[in-house]
Amino acid sequence: MKFMIINGPNLNLLGLREKSIYGEQTFESYLTKLKSTYPKIELQYYQSNIEGELINKLQEAGFSFDGIIINAGGYTHTSVAIADAIAAIKTPVIEVHISNIHAREEFRHQSLLAPKCRGSISGFGLDSYRLAIEHFLINH
Amino acid sequence: MKFMIINGPNLNLLGLREKSIYGEQTFESYLTKLKSTYPKIELQYYQSNIEGELINKLQEAGFSFDGIIINAGGYTHTSVAIADAIAAIKTPVIEVHISNIHAREEFRHQSLLAPKCRGSISGFGLDSYRLAIEHFLINH
Amino acid sequence: MKFMIINGPNLNLLGLREKSIYGEQTFESYLTKLKSTYPKIELQYYQSNIEGELINKLQEAGFSFDGIIINAGGYTHTSVAIADAIAAIKTPVIEVHISNIHAREEFRHQSLLAPKCRGSISGFGLDSYRLAIEHFLINH
Amino acid sequence: MKFMIINGPNLNLLGLREKSIYGEQTFESYLTKLKSTYPKIELQYYQSNIEGELINKLQEAGFSFDGIIINAGGYTHTSVAIADAIAAIKTPVIEVHISNIHAREEFRHQSLLAPKCRGSISGFGLDSYRLAIEHFLINH
Amino acid sequence: MKFMIINGPNLNLLGLREKSIYGEQTFESYLTKLKSTYPKIELQYYQSNIEGELINKLQEAGFSFDGIIINAGGYTHTSVAIADAIAAIKTPVIEVHISNIHAREEFRHQSLLAPKCRGSISGFGLDSYRLAIEHFLINH
Amino acid sequence: MKFMIINGPNLNLLGLREKSIYGEQTFESYLTKLKSTYPKIELQYYQSNIEGELINKLQEAGFSFDGIIINAGGYTHTSVAIADAIAAIKTPVIEVHISNIHAREEFRHQSLLAPKCRGSISGFGLDSYRLAIEHFLINH
Amino acid sequence: MKFMIINGPNLNLLGLREKSIYGEQTFESYLTKLKSTYPKIELQYYQSNIEGELINKLQEAGFSFDGIIINAGGYTHTSVAIADAIAAIKTPVIEVHISNIHAREEFRHQSLLAPKCRGSISGFGLDSYRLAIEHFLINH
Amino acid sequence: MKFMIINGPNLNLLGLREKSIYGEQTFESYLTKLKSTYPKIELQYYQSNIEGELINKLQEAGFSFDGIIINAGGYTHTSVAIADAIAAIKTPVIEVHISNIHAREEFRHQSLLAPKCRGSISGFGLDSYRLAIEHFLINH
Amino acid sequence: MKFMIINGPNLNLLGLREKSIYGEQTFESYLTKLKSTYPKIELQYYQSNIEGELINKLQEAGFSFDGIIINAGGYTHTSVAIADAIAAIKTPVIEVHISNIHAREEFRHQSLLAPKCRGSISGFGLDSYRLAIEHFLINH
Amino acid sequence: MKFMIINGPNLNLLGLREKSIYGEQTFESYLTKLKSTYPKIELQYYQSNIEGELINKLQEAGFSFDGIIINAGGYTHTSVAIADAIAAIKTPVIEVHISNIHAREEFRHQSLLAPKCRGSISGFGLDSYRLAIEHFLINH
Amino acid sequence: MKFMIINGPNLNLLGLREKSIYGEQTFESYLTKLKSTYPKIELQYYQSNIEGELINKLQEAGFSFDGIIINAGGYTHTSVAIADAIAAIKTPVIEVHISNIHAREEFRHQSLLAPKCRGSISGFGLDSYRLAIEHFLINH
Amino acid sequence: MKFMIINGPNLNLLGLREKSIYGEQTFESYLTKLKSTYPKIELQYYQSNIEGELINKLQEAGFSFDGIIINAGGYTHTSVAIADAIAAIKTPVIEVHISNIHAREEFRHQSLLAPKCRGSISGFGLDSYRLAIEHFLINH
Repeated sequence: MKFMIINGPNLNLLGLREKSIYGEQTFESYLTKLKSTYPKIELQYYQSNIEGELINKLQEAGFSFDGIIINAGGYTHTSVAIADAIAAIKTPVIEVHISNIHAREEFRHQSLLAPKCRGSISGFGLDSYRLAIEHFLINH
Repeated sequence: MKFMIINGPNLNLLGLREKSIYGEQTFESYLTKLKSTYPKIELQYYQSNIEGELINKLQEAGFSFDGIIINAGGYTHTSVAIADAIAAIKTPVIEVHISNIHAREEFRHQSLLAPKCRGSISGFGLDSYRLAIEHFLINH
Repeated sequence: MKFMIINGPNLNLLGLREKSIYGEQTFESYLTKLKSTYPKIELQYYQSNIEGELINKLQEAGFSFDGIIINAGGYTHTSVAIADAIAAIKTPVIEVHISNIHAREEFRHQSLLAPKCRGSISGFGLDSYRLAIEHFLINH
Repeated sequence: MKFMIINGPNLNLLGLREKSIYGEQTFESYLTKLKSTYPKIELQYYQSNIEGELINKLQEAGFSFDGIIINAGGYTHTSVAIADAIAAIKTPVIEVHISNIHAREEFRHQSLLAPKCRGSISGFGLDSYRLAIEHFLINH
Repeated sequence: MKFMIINGPNLNLLGLREKSIYGEQTFESYLTKLKSTYPKIELQYYQSNIEGELINKLQEAGFSFDGIIINAGGYTHTSVAIADAIAAIKTPVIEVHISNIHAREEFRHQSLLAPKCRGSISGFGLDSYRLAIEHFLINH
Repeated sequence: MKFMIINGPNLNLLGLREKSIYGEQTFESYLTKLKSTYPKIELQYYQSNIEGELINKLQEAGFSFDGIIINAGGYTHTSVAIADAIAAIKTPVIEVHISNIHAREEFRHQSLLAPKCRGSISGFGLDSYRLAIEHFLINH
Repeated sequence: MKFMIINGPNLNLLGLREKSIYGEQTFESYLTKLKSTYPKIELQYYQSNIEGELINKLQEAGFSFDGIIINAGGYTHTSVAIADAIAAIKTPVIEVHISNIHAREEFRHQSLLAPKCRGSISGFGLDSYRLAIEHFLINH
Repeated sequence: MKFMIINGPNLNLLGLREKSIYGEQTFESYLTKLKSTYPKIELQYYQSNIEGELINKLQEAGFSFDGIIINAGGYTHTSVAIADAIAAIKTPVIEVHISNIHAREEFRHQSLLAPKCRGSISGFGLDSYRLAIEHFLINH
Repeated sequence: MKFMIINGPNLNLLGLREKSIYGEQTFESYLTKLKSTYPKIELQYYQSNIEGELINKLQEAGFSFDGIIINAGGYTHTSVAIADAIAAIKTPVIEVHISNIHAREEFRHQSLLAPKCRGSISGFGLDSYRLAIEHFLINH
Repeated sequence: MKFMIINGPNLNLLGLREKSIYGEQTFESYLTKLKSTYPKIELQYYQSNIEGELINKLQEAGFSFDGIIINAGGYTHTSVAIADAIAAIKTPVIEVHISNIHAREEFRHQSLLAPKCRGSISGFGLDSYRLAIEHFLINH
Repeated sequence: MKFMIINGPNLNLLGLREKSIYGEQTFESYLTKLKSTYPKIELQYYQSNIEGELINKLQEAGFSFDGIIINAGGYTHTSVAIADAIAAIKTPVIEVHISNIHAREEFRHQSLLAPKCRGSISGFGLDSYRLAIEHFLINH
Repeated sequence: MKFMIINGPNLNLLGLREKSIYGEQTFESYLTKLKSTYPKIELQYYQSNIEGELINKLQEAGFSFDGIIINAGGYTHTSVAIADAIAAIKTPVIEVHISNIHAREEFRHQSLLAPKCRGSISGFGLDSYRLAIEHFLINH
């Protein structure tokens, strides 16, 4: 089984800055740990700050991978184009968020992507990514 | 470890009716399977169609359990009172939904409970409940 | 044929108070008259001020009766949970209102239940209940 | 007793087109049947696609008939002028709709006419007209 | 000088019905009095309940009369088409209302016609028409 | 007969500035002409840029004058306090505007004062004031 | 092939007035030219300022013509009734606008008819009509 | 004199939890003190987390007590049904809130109950209850 | 102890006009009575129709008095500036209203001042002022 | 004559996926056919999923081409930046859509680009592109 | 060169109170320093809590000064009248704010004055005033 | 000291096109002049039409420069992702706009970036950039 994790804008700063909020862990080190937890699955990772490159990657992975996990960061709330990409591909997509987006600013309460995804997981810190994998393992 | 699952209105009909949508499984049979998956944890279950009884149960479990998983059904979108109960208790609460509420009617997109919960999981069928437990096992 | 009439909050005060508005007739005495008008049908009646008990009754009657007539009072405008119950059961439901809800306060103009009911009858005083029965007699 | 039925735009197509939705019955044939059901009452019928002609007819019938039954079709949701006509005349008016307007597009949920009518009946197919007559027979 | 008065829907009922509100005067008798007050001007009058006929009349009078006074009744708040007609013609148009539309229902507070008229006069009873003429006499 | 004209903020600049819009006439010179047109009535004039002073003047004149004509300028759209003053006094008040407020910015379309006034006149330039007097002469 | 062009309110003034905006061409002269461009198709034309007459014509042509081109003018933004007529007939309908309605006043941005039409063409002057024919020639 | 205090959802947790916010006092101990302050009045107390039980109590006390003081907690902002109950009974009702609801989340700014109560008191801690009694003592 | 009562626009008309609504008592005579009820406290009173003068007085009293009671009349719903003044001073402020503002026009339901005050009391007639003092006596 | 066709996000998937909706034709094969239909014009084509690259291309082509045809896909509804680019360049731009955007989800009804384009064509499948060329041929 | 600084409500409290937020500097002492920085320009200063007095000062300075710098405090968000004054005068006006109004409460995000000013500067503490002068020195 | 100026979409066209609006100066020539005005500071410049590249640059400069000046053009009003980047970096950011965005279209009145910036400067033409530098020189 082969899964793709796609991270959107500013998630490359994880673990490097604002450590009091997000902890000292970079996404890369979390990824290493995640891979060791699930040694039998193939886990690829992509990050970009550019909306259209996220779409490129969704299209690329969207017909061959068994599952895609996306955290589109700020584009979650504004991008019809990414939502359209999710709807257009075949691979099921799960939306994850590190923080509980419903407990933050009003404009973060609505996700344009969620209606096109299989499901949505938010608020569990980096563990949100693992829960998505947990689901895919049983329902890919 | 001790977890409480609280189901709100109409979830008692699961598996009995509308089988084409929700499958043939009753929540009770799912629960049995769930318990067997996690033999070491104590899993209690409560269902009521009455908003205030859900609050009673939250208050009752909210100071002694290690985690609460709530699917408040239709009250999710209208109950300030349940949201207040979640905020008032000590036990962390995870909101789950069987269907992807963001892909349904407009009025189901907003959850009044989500801002008071640790996190929110929706769209994974009955597997949403398991994912919540998965998280609690690591972060209770 | 067997029909259930379900009345929601404050409708137990009918005929006892505010006589200038609602007349001197209690719902019970109206019911007696209604039964005598339709001697061949079985007419059961339930009233509760508790939202979840209305759901309980809808679920209970919703798979064996030929028709349900509901006047959910104030819950008409706020209860997603009752609307879900109506959608989940098999028996067709007709929504009735004694007063013309469209001629009252703005917040009474919208019924959350109406979209899930077969139809809606409002403004005919207690006669609204009889009209619902009239319809069920021909289209149960 | 003398009642007037007024049908608005596109209701002249009933039974002729979209038979899968509205059935094979023209309003004229339904009317014939309705008249035979209530042989003692005088039942007049008028249809126009022109908003102002509906107003003309309301004014004409509105001081001599015992009741008016109006299905204003699409004008239901946009016509302040028809609502004003209903408010200005003496004869009580009942609004009817064949389909359940509350279960259709958002813009059909609000009726500008309803607040000026005695009551509103929607969702019972052509039987909505008969229910209105049923009420008028007892409360003209 | 030649002025046209155009009255919209339900204004033909003035003085005939609802005398407690609008007084006992028909518009025709008011018009007779108005003509005698201004013997030197030509005053034509037109009334229709049909929106498009009001447009026909505006187009007809709108290139030869010195002023048009319009009370579009209920169409005031809904007719983009009449507003377009006022904008398209050459003769200046004054909007009048018998009642103070700003003191009535919310939906009567906005006039779609007003932005296209020279000015707006409301709340002075039938005297609103005379004030419009008073203005035209000085500024035609 | 005794009438009070009350002008609000920035109307003291009339005729002095922005001559291309408002013409070369100061309100004072217009007032002189107006007085000579109606030699038999007493016409007092007050202007202030201060909201509360307009209220003071309304209260002062509001129990002894036969009519008040107010152009509250920018306060028209924001002052609940002036509206309350108009509602509290006995003298009838007419709201006037030099420009057609309905043809200007969106926020000028709503007048908080209009619902409390006898009527409203807007769009006739300085002639709006005269039309108000014309009405008061007949209906004081 | 047989096409019907239906023009709504105020479009009869085209070419006669406001020449600086709409040019010197009447719709009739444009129509003559259009017919000569497509000599093999039958092109009928109808104009009315009356909403209900537009509905009458849609119903009349809507079961025998190969295509209908409608410019409903001001009714575009307010007429549920015309939209219903378009939905009820069999002939495909294309909505056209001479001006770019999206670049004009806010209330012109929404067309109630567009969702019921095959497509929408706006902003190309009178050429919008020809583009509609161009499409029908290939996809009738 | 006989007064009823009705507390809604989660107010049973007062003084037991969140002591930093609400202090160490349970409502019961406050009530004891309150009774000793007003030894001559009869003071009954009821608390429930169930919306419909609050309605039951309002109906029960609403025709025999001299005053009712209600703090409906989270139902304040969502319950049309409780508002209807307050409007239906004879005993005057005062709404109280411990915290200043206008200084909290947006959705707490509107009370559906307030328009049906004699008055509203919020922000004075537990002293809000005493102020209500103070008023009833003089104006029962 | 020293308290300041500040009354806003039109409250100087209390007891003089609209006696059927507000009674025959002037605020001055009420104040005399109030002072005699609480002989040990110093009670100062200020009224102005001018928004900025209310701010001046708040600033003046806001650093030396033990409590301020404000009824800002119509400015309650529109004045960010007064709200800012309340937030800037040290003395706690209680907002009072004679009428139940929640039972009046929609625009009176929101108070811009309330979020900055300690609490809000509305609907108790002139007794609202006394209740504020009652609270200050215990919690100054 | 030289025209540029610019396609936005996800339009590169045309004809490859979701064949039941969009048919089996890739845009490239459609383009070949389109070029053969208009052999005398130069037709260039560009597609990108990246918003800013669409702007780059608009700026590049926007001062030398005779016309630009843009289908901005999901960016249509969210991109102020693309709208600004269209407004800043000299070449006229026509907006096209394959589907009828007015018949789809609410958020697709508004185009931020349309007000800056010469015109808008939507709902004609791939034929929308040809209609745009048809117009440019006559009005470049 | 001659500039006027106008400060609105509550800005007279600067430096005297809430020192933790606004620092220990009074506006007067800041002004002294500002004058010494720009010894060649004439800098006048005016403060009032009264909206209309700010208008008076704008009118007074608005035809002879080279620039006006206004911080209208709370009136920024509510005063159409001050905005009108800025639009009516000849001297260019710059709006300044000490705090970043866009980072504060929702209602402070919109300035009614900004559209009438040359520009807007907010968020730089007292330095906002100096930046305005810096601009005027180059573009008066 | 080292400052970064970041310009967003379409600002590369400055001075090249639309000279009547923006003048004949390119940003590059303005920059040269700006550098010569402040010879002691290091001033870097970056422009891109691609949203994500602006984020890249913000992240790159955001931990080493003394200040960032951003004009995000059309992304100002739509980009949550850029706002998040500004919030995530350490270097203070000032938002500038050449035109007065508050005096333009409604959708330009709100900046998503402003709440995350130190301050906002708009309306001063290219001088807005210099004012930002002026501030940073004193408060870096």
